[in-house]
Amino acid sequence: MKTLVIVAHPQLADSGTQQFLKTSLQNFSTVTWHVLAPDVDVAAEQALLRRHDRIIFQFPLYWYSAPALLKHWEDEVLTRNFVYGAQHELAHKELGIVVTTGDAKREFVAGGKEDYTMSELLRPYQALAHKAQMSYLPPLPIFQFAYLTDAQKQALLVTYQQYITNSDFTSFHGQELWFEGQLKAKIDQTKGTSKQQLTQILTAVQDNREQLEELRWTLSLIKDNEDE
Amino acid sequence: MKTLVIVAHPQLADSGTQQFLKTSLQNFSTVTWHVLAPDVDVAAEQALLRRHDRIIFQFPLYWYSAPALLKHWEDEVLTRNFVYGAQHELAHKELGIVVTTGDAKREFVAGGKEDYTMSELLRPYQALAHKAQMSYLPPLPIFQFAYLTDAQKQALLVTYQQYITNSDFTSFHGQELWFEGQLKAKIDQTKGTSKQQLTQILTAVQDNREQLEELRWTLSLIKDNEDE
Repeated sequence: MKTLVIVAHPQLADSGTQQFLKTSLQNFSTVTWHVLAPDVDVAAEQALLRRHDRIIFQFPLYWYSAPALLKHWEDEVLTRNFVYGAQHELAHKELGIVVTTGDAKREFVAGGKEDYTMSELLRPYQALAHKAQMSYLPPLPIFQFAYLTDAQKQALLVTYQQYITNSDFTSFHGQELWFEGQLKAKIDQTKGTSKQQLTQILTAVQDNREQLEELRWTLSLIKDNEDE
Repeated sequence: MKTLVIVAHPQLADSGTQQFLKTSLQNFSTVTWHVLAPDVDVAAEQALLRRHDRIIFQFPLYWYSAPALLKHWEDEVLTRNFVYGAQHELAHKELGIVVTTGDAKREFVAGGKEDYTMSELLRPYQALAHKAQMSYLPPLPIFQFAYLTDAQKQALLVTYQQYITNSDFTSFHGQELWFEGQLKAKIDQTKGTSKQQLTQILTAVQDNREQLEELRWTLSLIKDNEDE
């Protein structure tokens, strides 16, 4: 699976969040990090979209939407023909949203300071995915990055890496397989005692997963019997 | 009440709808027709907002949102300080949306081709109004203007004029008073037999309204008695 991360940030150089997210992807060869500029080459952008399976819109929330930079790109690149006219070039691809905001998560709720959930505010992107026959991924909102502890940032890093690179990031099983893949890649790059230790860890993780799969299977048998 | 109509349309000269809407407002001295250009003078725009009571965002729906032109204006002009920081410059003003689309009204519904209602898609503007402590007016969507009959266009014209200039356009009573005001203005500009005829019409309309008010009053008395 190839992922295109479309980054729309008017002050990208000053954004610690975007720097953090970019760094977290540097070992993934299947990811294209694509920073938007005001000038748009429509044919080049459409070609880039064609070459990827998962499309990510990544931006800071400005007035409950993406910065004008991304809207301009949408207005220019997503022509009627390309998206839903003669062709359906984006059909069966995925659309994900990584949105950052300085406001607290608890405010994005009816009665909160922002009064609407992130899901409601991002509805125009969901409608775009629907029109384009794309799968709309659950958005990944990042609230108040500056206030996160190191442990929280570490957790965010793994969540983000999976959002971008894991084809099955919403299921626990998919997450397990992704972790094993990461561990295997690490082992390939390592030598000596460390390699042996990592291999032992991998074996333990795999044993765990297999036990879980057996338990899950047993559980589904019991449920099937109850249903009869 | 002074109204600022902020028109964001990248191909304004080619838009028959916008020409129609503009023409329908030419006799209203309390309306400022303000066409957005890519370059934004923040101080001038903020001064313009301060001088008006009802702010209208008027645009064609591009990818379920305003064209980048309006988003750029929002990102530049609606600074934190101006809207909700030190000052609350827009508080108690009204925000209205006039949105045009070539898609049919029946598609903007769960299960329809667009899958979401216009109210849902315009949520980011509602959230903006909430943050700015503005009153959010029920949006005025104009579906498939090109397919309207002359009678439908005439009805739209009056609906639009009221949306822009009538401080109480959602109640029947407010609509009646607005019509009387329009008729009075017309009478002032007319002479001779026409003036007499229009004056007779005005008297009839006023009598009608007063009868209706009496009926309404009687009805409310009956309801009050029932509640006791």
